Amino acid sequence: MSHMAQIGISVLAEDRPGLLRDLAAHVAEFGANIEAVHHDPGAHTEIHLELDGDFDPFALRDKLLRVSSVHRVEITDSAGAIFGKRVIVMGGGAQVAQVVLGAVSEADRHNIRGERISVDTIPLVGEARLAEAVRAVGRLPRAKILVLAGSIMGGDISNAVRELREQHGVPVISLAMAGSVPAAADFVVTDPVQAGTMAVMTIADTAQFDLARVRGMRF
Amino acid sequence: MSHMAQIGISVLAEDRPGLLRDLAAHVAEFGANIEAVHHDPGAHTEIHLELDGDFDPFALRDKLLRVSSVHRVEITDSAGAIFGKRVIVMGGGAQVAQVVLGAVSEADRHNIRGERISVDTIPLVGEARLAEAVRAVGRLPRAKILVLAGSIMGGDISNAVRELREQHGVPVISLAMAGSVPAAADFVVTDPVQAGTMAVMTIADTAQFDLARVRGMRF
Repeated sequence: MSHMAQIGISVLAEDRPGLLRDLAAHVAEFGANIEAVHHDPGAHTEIHLELDGDFDPFALRDKLLRVSSVHRVEITDSAGAIFGKRVIVMGGGAQVAQVVLGAVSEADRHNIRGERISVDTIPLVGEARLAEAVRAVGRLPRAKILVLAGSIMGGDISNAVRELREQHGVPVISLAMAGSVPAAADFVVTDPVQAGTMAVMTIADTAQFDLARVRGMRF
Repeated sequence: MSHMAQIGISVLAEDRPGLLRDLAAHVAEFGANIEAVHHDPGAHTEIHLELDGDFDPFALRDKLLRVSSVHRVEITDSAGAIFGKRVIVMGGGAQVAQVVLGAVSEADRHNIRGERISVDTIPLVGEARLAEAVRAVGRLPRAKILVLAGSIMGGDISNAVRELREQHGVPVISLAMAGSVPAAADFVVTDPVQAGTMAVMTIADTAQFDLARVRGMRF
Protein backbone atom coordinates (compact mmCIF):
# COMPACT_ATOMS: atom_id res chain seq x y z
CA MET A 1 0.00 0.00 0.00
CA SER A 2 1.45 3.30 -1.08
CA HIS A 3 0.56 6.60 0.58
CA MET A 4 2.10 9.97 1.39
CA ALA A 5 4.37 9.22 4.29
CA GLN A 6 6.74 11.21 6.46
CA ILE A 7 8.64 8.68 8.51
CA GLY A 8 12.00 7.77 9.90
CA ILE A 9 13.83 4.56 9.05
CA SER A 10 16.66 3.36 11.28
CA VAL A 11 19.07 0.92 9.70
CA LEU A 12 21.43 -1.10 11.89
CA ALA A 13 24.34 -2.48 9.92
CA GLU A 14 28.01 -3.29 9.89
CA ASP A 15 29.62 -0.16 8.53
CA ARG A 16 31.29 -0.39 5.13
CA PRO A 17 32.18 2.02 2.32
CA GLY A 18 29.19 2.77 0.12
CA LEU A 19 26.56 1.67 2.63
CA LEU A 20 24.70 4.99 2.53
CA ARG A 21 25.02 5.10 -1.28
CA ASP A 22 23.38 1.65 -1.50
CA LEU A 23 20.57 2.62 0.87
CA ALA A 24 20.01 5.88 -1.04
CA ALA A 25 19.80 3.94 -4.31
CA HIS A 26 16.92 1.81 -3.00
CA VAL A 27 15.16 4.80 -1.48
CA ALA A 28 15.38 6.60 -4.84
CA GLU A 29 13.90 3.52 -6.58
CA PHE A 30 10.87 3.73 -4.27
CA GLY A 31 10.37 7.38 -5.14
CA ALA A 32 10.95 8.47 -1.54
CA ASN A 33 12.83 11.70 -0.79
CA ILE A 34 15.58 11.66 1.80
CA GLU A 35 15.11 14.82 3.85
CA ALA A 36 17.79 14.05 6.40
CA VAL A 37 20.33 11.44 7.36
CA HIS A 38 22.08 10.88 10.64
CA HIS A 39 24.90 8.39 10.68
CA ASP A 40 26.12 7.13 14.04
CA PRO A 41 29.55 5.80 13.13
CA GLY A 42 31.21 2.70 14.54
CA ALA A 43 31.72 -0.90 13.43
CA HIS A 44 28.06 -1.55 14.22
CA THR A 45 26.55 1.57 12.85
CA GLU A 46 23.10 3.09 12.82
CA ILE A 47 21.99 5.12 9.84
CA HIS A 48 18.78 7.02 10.42
CA LEU A 49 16.91 8.32 7.36
CA GLU A 50 14.12 10.88 7.40
CA LEU A 51 11.89 10.19 4.41
CA ASP A 52 9.05 11.95 2.71
CA GLY A 53 6.91 11.04 -0.28
CA ASP A 54 4.37 8.70 -1.77
CA PHE A 55 5.76 5.22 -1.09
CA ASP A 56 5.12 2.05 0.88
CA PRO A 57 7.39 2.19 3.95
CA PHE A 58 6.99 -1.53 4.72
CA ALA A 59 8.03 -2.62 1.24
CA LEU A 60 10.99 -0.24 1.47
CA ARG A 61 11.92 -1.70 4.85
CA ASP A 62 11.91 -5.22 3.37
CA LYS A 63 14.10 -4.05 0.49
CA LEU A 64 16.62 -2.34 2.76
CA LEU A 65 16.82 -5.50 4.88
CA ARG A 66 18.33 -7.26 1.86
CA VAL A 67 21.12 -4.67 1.42
CA SER A 68 24.54 -6.18 2.17
CA SER A 69 25.73 -5.84 5.82
CA VAL A 70 22.30 -4.63 7.08
CA HIS A 71 21.10 -6.39 10.25
CA ARG A 72 17.90 -4.63 11.21
CA VAL A 73 15.56 -1.96 9.83
CA GLU A 74 13.06 -0.13 12.01
CA ILE A 75 10.34 2.30 11.01
CA THR A 76 10.06 5.24 13.43
CA ASP A 77 8.27 8.54 13.62
CA SER A 78 10.10 11.34 11.83
CA ALA A 79 12.13 13.87 13.81
CA GLY A 80 9.76 16.47 12.40
CA ALA A 81 6.78 14.69 13.97
CA ILE A 82 8.56 14.41 17.32
CA PHE A 83 10.58 17.61 17.70
CA GLY A 84 8.69 19.78 15.21
CA LYS A 85 9.60 23.32 14.24
CA ARG A 86 12.69 24.83 15.81
CA VAL A 87 13.15 28.31 17.27
CA ILE A 88 16.90 29.05 17.32
CA VAL A 89 18.24 31.50 19.92
CA MET A 90 21.85 32.67 19.91
CA GLY A 91 23.98 35.36 21.51
CA GLY A 92 25.16 36.26 25.00
CA GLY A 93 24.37 33.83 27.81
CA ALA A 94 22.32 36.14 30.03
CA GLN A 95 20.04 37.31 27.23
CA VAL A 96 19.77 33.91 25.55
CA ALA A 97 18.57 32.43 28.85
CA GLN A 98 15.85 35.09 29.18
CA VAL A 99 14.66 34.67 25.58
CA VAL A 100 14.46 30.91 26.10
CA LEU A 101 12.40 31.43 29.25
CA GLY A 102 9.76 33.20 27.17
CA ALA A 103 10.03 30.85 24.22
CA VAL A 104 9.77 27.62 26.23
CA SER A 105 6.78 28.89 28.22
CA GLU A 106 5.01 29.89 25.02
CA ALA A 107 5.97 26.67 23.18
CA ASP A 108 4.58 24.69 26.13
CA ARG A 109 1.18 26.35 25.63
CA HIS A 110 1.13 25.45 21.94
CA ASN A 111 2.53 21.93 22.35
CA ILE A 112 -0.18 21.15 24.91
CA ARG A 113 -2.66 21.84 22.11
CA GLY A 114 -0.94 19.31 19.84
CA GLU A 115 1.81 21.31 18.15
CA ARG A 116 5.49 20.42 18.30
CA ILE A 117 7.80 23.40 18.77
CA SER A 118 11.39 23.06 20.04
CA VAL A 119 13.57 25.87 21.34
CA ASP A 120 17.25 25.39 20.54
CA THR A 121 20.01 27.68 21.71
CA ILE A 122 23.69 28.34 21.65
CA PRO A 123 25.42 30.98 23.74
CA LEU A 124 28.07 32.43 21.46
CA VAL A 125 29.92 35.75 21.19
CA GLY A 126 32.22 37.40 18.65
CA GLU A 127 31.42 38.80 15.22
CA ALA A 128 33.02 36.05 13.13
CA ARG A 129 31.65 33.18 15.20
CA LEU A 130 28.14 34.62 15.33
CA ALA A 131 28.06 35.44 11.61
CA GLU A 132 29.13 31.87 10.80
CA ALA A 133 26.50 30.43 13.16
CA VAL A 134 23.73 32.66 11.71
CA ARG A 135 24.62 31.44 8.20
CA ALA A 136 24.60 27.83 9.45
CA VAL A 137 20.98 28.21 10.66
CA GLY A 138 20.00 27.96 6.97
CA ARG A 139 21.45 24.45 6.94
CA LEU A 140 19.78 23.28 10.18
CA PRO A 141 16.82 20.95 9.71
CA ARG A 142 13.45 22.45 10.71
CA ALA A 143 14.86 25.84 11.82
CA LYS A 144 11.91 28.22 11.36
CA ILE A 145 12.97 31.43 13.12
CA LEU A 146 16.10 32.95 14.70
CA VAL A 147 16.30 35.25 17.71
CA LEU A 148 19.52 37.21 18.16
CA ALA A 149 19.99 38.02 21.83
CA GLY A 150 22.84 40.29 22.83
CA SER A 151 23.92 43.82 23.64
CA ILE A 152 25.87 44.68 20.49
CA MET A 153 25.90 42.91 17.13
CA GLY A 154 26.72 44.26 13.70
CA GLY A 155 29.21 44.05 10.81
CA ASP A 156 29.20 40.67 9.13
CA ILE A 157 26.49 39.40 11.50
CA SER A 158 24.10 41.83 9.78
CA ASN A 159 25.13 40.48 6.35
CA ALA A 160 24.48 36.95 7.61
CA VAL A 161 21.04 38.01 8.92
CA ARG A 162 20.10 39.39 5.51
CA GLU A 163 21.35 36.24 3.74
CA LEU A 164 19.40 33.98 6.10
CA ARG A 165 16.20 35.96 5.52
CA GLU A 166 16.59 36.27 1.75
CA GLN A 167 18.17 32.96 0.75
CA HIS A 168 16.51 30.64 3.26
CA GLY A 169 13.32 32.51 4.18
CA VAL A 170 14.09 32.24 7.90
CA PRO A 171 12.78 35.32 9.77
CA VAL A 172 15.02 36.99 12.34
CA ILE A 173 14.01 38.78 15.56
CA SER A 174 16.61 41.03 17.19
CA LEU A 175 16.64 42.27 20.74
CA ALA A 176 16.97 46.03 21.04
CA MET A 177 20.75 46.43 21.07
CA ALA A 178 23.68 48.49 19.81
CA GLY A 179 25.01 47.81 16.32
CA SER A 180 23.40 47.28 12.92
CA VAL A 181 21.66 43.92 13.53
CA PRO A 182 18.32 45.43 14.67
CA ALA A 183 18.04 47.25 11.31
CA ALA A 184 18.73 44.01 9.42
CA ALA A 185 16.15 41.95 11.36
CA ASP A 186 12.43 41.49 10.65
CA PHE A 187 11.48 43.22 13.89
CA VAL A 188 12.98 44.33 17.18
CA VAL A 189 11.86 43.49 20.73
CA THR A 190 13.19 45.18 23.88
CA ASP A 191 12.17 42.63 26.51
CA PRO A 192 13.93 39.26 25.95
CA VAL A 193 11.08 37.17 27.45
CA GLN A 194 8.69 38.93 25.05
CA ALA A 195 11.09 38.25 22.16
CA GLY A 196 11.03 34.52 22.92
CA THR A 197 7.24 34.54 23.22
CA MET A 198 6.83 36.38 19.92
CA ALA A 199 9.27 34.05 18.16
CA VAL A 200 7.09 31.06 19.04
CA MET A 201 3.89 32.93 18.13
CA THR A 202 5.36 33.77 14.72
CA ILE A 203 5.80 30.10 13.76
CA ALA A 204 2.94 28.48 15.72
CA ASP A 205 -0.08 27.24 13.79
CA THR A 206 -2.23 27.78 16.86
CA ALA A 207 -1.33 31.48 17.24
CA GLN A 208 -2.78 34.62 15.69
CA PHE A 209 0.36 36.46 14.71
CA ASP A 210 1.15 37.77 11.26
CA LEU A 211 4.82 38.49 10.62
CA ALA A 212 3.97 40.72 7.66
CA ARG A 213 2.06 43.08 9.96
CA VAL A 214 4.89 43.59 12.46
CA ARG A 215 7.83 43.71 10.04
CA GLY A 216 10.04 46.73 10.66
CA MET A 217 8.39 47.45 14.02
CA ARG A 218 10.00 47.86 17.41
CA PHE A 219 8.33 46.56 20.57
CA MET B 1 46.28 17.27 -0.50
CA SER B 2 44.54 14.70 1.66
CA HIS B 3 44.08 15.17 5.40
CA MET B 4 41.66 14.28 8.19
CA ALA B 5 38.79 16.65 7.64
CA GLN B 6 35.47 17.32 9.31
CA ILE B 7 33.63 19.70 7.03
CA GLY B 8 30.30 20.56 5.55
CA ILE B 9 29.60 20.59 1.83
CA SER B 10 26.55 22.43 0.50
CA VAL B 11 25.38 21.39 -2.93
CA LEU B 12 22.95 23.58 -4.85
CA ALA B 13 21.20 21.68 -7.61
CA GLU B 14 18.02 21.14 -9.53
CA ASP B 15 16.27 18.38 -7.63
CA ARG B 16 15.89 15.04 -9.38
CA PRO B 17 15.43 11.41 -8.31
CA GLY B 18 18.73 9.80 -7.35
CA LEU B 19 20.60 13.07 -6.75
CA LEU B 20 21.60 12.14 -3.20
CA ARG B 21 22.51 8.62 -4.32
CA ASP B 22 24.86 10.07 -6.98
CA LEU B 23 26.45 12.48 -4.49
CA ALA B 24 26.87 9.66 -1.96
CA ALA B 25 28.54 7.48 -4.60
CA HIS B 26 31.26 10.11 -5.21
CA VAL B 27 31.70 10.75 -1.50
CA ALA B 28 32.18 6.99 -0.95
CA GLU B 29 34.79 6.91 -3.75
CA PHE B 30 36.79 9.59 -1.94
CA GLY B 31 36.72 7.54 1.26
CA ALA B 32 34.80 10.24 3.12
CA ASN B 33 32.11 9.27 5.64
CA ILE B 34 28.75 11.01 5.49
CA GLU B 35 27.82 11.76 9.09
CA ALA B 36 24.70 13.74 8.30
CA VAL B 37 22.64 15.04 5.43
CA HIS B 38 20.09 17.82 5.35
CA HIS B 39 18.03 18.15 2.21
CA ASP B 40 16.11 21.37 1.69
CA PRO B 41 13.54 20.30 -0.89
CA GLY B 42 12.25 22.34 -3.80
CA ALA B 43 12.95 22.59 -7.52
CA HIS B 44 16.21 24.37 -6.70
CA THR B 45 17.33 22.30 -3.81
CA GLU B 46 20.18 22.48 -1.34
CA ILE B 47 21.71 19.28 -0.05
CA HIS B 48 24.06 19.80 2.86
CA LEU B 49 26.47 16.98 3.71
CA GLU B 50 28.46 16.66 6.93
CA LEU B 51 31.62 14.74 6.12
CA ASP B 52 34.40 13.16 8.12
CA GLY B 53 37.51 11.28 7.08
CA ASP B 54 40.86 11.41 5.35
CA PHE B 55 40.15 13.03 1.99
CA ASP B 56 40.80 16.15 -0.07
CA PRO B 57 37.69 18.34 0.25
CA PHE B 58 38.63 20.54 -2.73
CA ALA B 59 39.05 17.57 -5.09
CA LEU B 60 35.71 16.21 -3.83
CA ARG B 61 34.10 19.60 -4.44
CA ASP B 62 35.37 19.59 -8.03
CA LYS B 63 34.03 16.08 -8.54
CA LEU B 64 30.59 16.91 -7.13
CA LEU B 65 30.42 19.96 -9.41
CA ARG B 66 30.41 17.56 -12.36
CA VAL B 67 27.40 15.57 -11.07
CA SER B 68 24.35 16.05 -13.30
CA SER B 69 22.01 18.95 -12.30
CA VAL B 70 24.48 20.39 -9.74
CA HIS B 71 24.97 24.17 -9.99
CA ARG B 72 27.20 25.09 -7.10
CA VAL B 73 29.21 23.36 -4.37
CA GLU B 74 30.41 25.18 -1.27
CA ILE B 75 32.70 23.98 1.50
CA THR B 76 31.53 25.11 4.95
CA ASP B 77 32.38 24.44 8.55
CA SER B 78 30.65 21.38 9.95
CA ALA B 79 27.59 21.74 12.18
CA GLY B 80 29.66 20.02 14.84
CA ALA B 81 32.27 22.76 14.67
CA ILE B 82 29.62 25.50 14.85
CA PHE B 83 26.94 24.17 17.20
CA GLY B 84 28.99 21.53 19.00
CA LYS B 85 27.69 19.11 21.60
CA ARG B 86 24.01 19.26 22.45
CA VAL B 87 22.33 19.15 25.86
CA ILE B 88 18.69 18.08 25.34
CA VAL B 89 16.08 19.18 27.88
CA MET B 90 12.49 17.93 27.77
CA GLY B 91 9.44 17.88 29.98
CA GLY B 92 7.03 20.41 31.47
CA GLY B 93 7.39 24.03 30.38
CA ALA B 94 8.05 25.61 33.78
CA GLN B 95 10.79 23.15 34.71
CA VAL B 96 12.33 22.99 31.25
CA ALA B 97 12.70 26.79 31.30
CA GLN B 98 14.52 26.68 34.66
CA VAL B 99 16.85 23.85 33.58
CA VAL B 100 17.72 25.80 30.42
CA LEU B 101 18.48 28.89 32.51
CA GLY B 102 21.18 26.93 34.31
CA ALA B 103 22.41 25.11 31.22
CA VAL B 104 22.72 28.20 29.02
CA SER B 105 24.55 30.17 31.71
CA GLU B 106 26.99 27.31 32.21
CA ALA B 107 27.41 26.67 28.46
CA ASP B 108 28.19 30.37 28.02
CA ARG B 109 31.10 30.05 30.45
CA HIS B 110 32.54 27.08 28.54
CA ASN B 111 31.90 28.48 25.06
CA ILE B 112 33.75 31.68 26.00
CA ARG B 113 36.77 29.45 26.57
CA GLY B 114 36.49 27.99 23.08
CA GLU B 115 34.06 25.09 23.47
CA ARG B 116 30.80 24.75 21.54
CA ILE B 117 27.86 23.54 23.62
CA SER B 118 24.23 24.01 22.55
CA VAL B 119 21.17 23.63 24.76
CA ASP B 120 18.15 22.28 22.91
CA THR B 121 14.73 21.85 24.43
CA ILE B 122 11.20 20.74 23.83
CA PRO B 123 8.35 21.24 26.27
CA LEU B 124 6.32 18.04 26.03
CA VAL B 125 3.97 16.14 28.33
CA GLY B 126 2.28 12.72 28.29
CA GLU B 127 3.82 9.28 28.79
CA ALA B 128 3.65 8.09 25.17
CA ARG B 129 4.88 11.35 23.66
CA LEU B 130 7.74 11.68 26.13
CA ALA B 131 8.82 8.05 25.77
CA GLU B 132 8.90 8.45 21.98
CA ALA B 133 10.88 11.70 22.25
CA VAL B 134 13.38 10.15 24.71
CA ARG B 135 13.99 7.27 22.27
CA ALA B 136 14.40 9.76 19.41
CA VAL B 137 17.26 11.51 21.27
CA GLY B 138 19.40 8.51 20.26
CA ARG B 139 18.86 9.50 16.63
CA LEU B 140 19.62 13.22 17.09
CA PRO B 141 23.01 14.34 15.80
CA ARG B 142 25.47 15.43 18.52
CA ALA B 143 23.05 14.81 21.45
CA LYS B 144 25.40 14.15 24.40
CA ILE B 145 23.14 14.27 27.47
CA LEU B 146 19.42 14.42 28.29
CA VAL B 147 17.75 16.21 31.20
CA LEU B 148 14.20 15.16 32.06
CA ALA B 149 12.40 18.03 33.74
CA GLY B 150 8.95 17.44 35.17
CA SER B 151 6.91 16.58 38.23
CA ILE B 152 5.94 12.99 37.42
CA MET B 153 7.39 10.65 34.82
CA GLY B 154 7.42 6.86 34.74
CA GLY B 155 6.11 3.81 32.89
CA ASP B 156 7.41 3.58 29.34
CA ILE B 157 9.44 6.79 29.79
CA SER B 158 11.64 4.84 32.23
CA ASN B 159 12.09 2.05 29.67
CA ALA B 160 13.07 4.66 27.08
CA VAL B 161 15.59 6.20 29.52
CA ARG B 162 17.24 2.82 30.05
CA GLU B 163 17.35 2.15 26.28
CA LEU B 164 18.89 5.56 25.60
CA ARG B 165 21.59 5.00 28.21
CA GLU B 166 22.37 1.41 27.24
CA GLN B 167 21.97 1.43 23.47
CA HIS B 168 23.21 4.93 22.67
CA GLY B 169 25.43 5.74 25.64
CA VAL B 170 23.59 9.02 26.27
CA PRO B 171 23.53 9.82 30.02
CA VAL B 172 20.26 11.01 31.57
CA ILE B 173 19.76 13.43 34.47
CA SER B 174 16.35 13.47 36.14
CA LEU B 175 14.89 16.18 38.31
CA ALA B 176 13.65 14.93 41.67
CA MET B 177 10.07 13.99 40.82
CA ALA B 178 7.33 11.42 41.35
CA GLY B 179 7.37 8.25 39.26
CA SER B 180 10.07 5.77 38.28
CA VAL B 181 12.22 7.96 36.00
CA PRO B 182 14.59 9.16 38.78
CA ALA B 183 15.52 5.51 39.50
CA ALA B 184 16.21 4.88 35.80
CA ALA B 185 18.42 7.98 35.36
CA ASP B 186 22.19 8.33 35.92
CA PHE B 187 21.63 10.80 38.76
CA VAL B 188 18.94 13.01 40.25
CA VAL B 189 19.02 16.76 40.92
CA THR B 190 16.43 18.65 42.97
CA ASP B 191 17.08 22.21 41.78
CA PRO B 192 16.39 22.62 38.04
CA VAL B 193 19.00 25.38 37.53
CA GLN B 194 21.58 23.08 39.16
CA ALA B 195 20.45 20.21 36.90
CA GLY B 196 21.09 22.33 33.81
CA THR B 197 24.48 23.42 35.13
CA MET B 198 25.51 19.84 35.92
CA ALA B 199 24.34 18.61 32.51
CA VAL B 200 26.73 21.02 30.80
CA MET B 201 29.56 20.21 33.23
CA THR B 202 29.11 16.50 32.49
CA ILE B 203 29.83 16.93 28.78
CA ALA B 204 32.19 19.94 28.81
CA ASP B 205 35.86 19.35 28.09
CA THR B 206 36.75 22.38 30.21
CA ALA B 207 34.96 21.10 33.34
CA GLN B 208 36.10 18.82 36.15
CA PHE B 209 33.10 16.56 36.51
CA ASP B 210 33.21 12.78 36.42
CA LEU B 211 29.87 11.12 35.68
CA ALA B 212 31.10 7.80 37.07
CA ARG B 213 31.62 9.41 40.49
CA VAL B 214 28.09 10.82 40.79
CA ARG B 215 26.12 7.94 39.22
CA GLY B 216 23.21 6.88 41.41
CA MET B 217 23.50 9.99 43.58
CA ARG B 218 20.84 12.52 44.46
CA PHE B 219 21.66 16.22 44.77
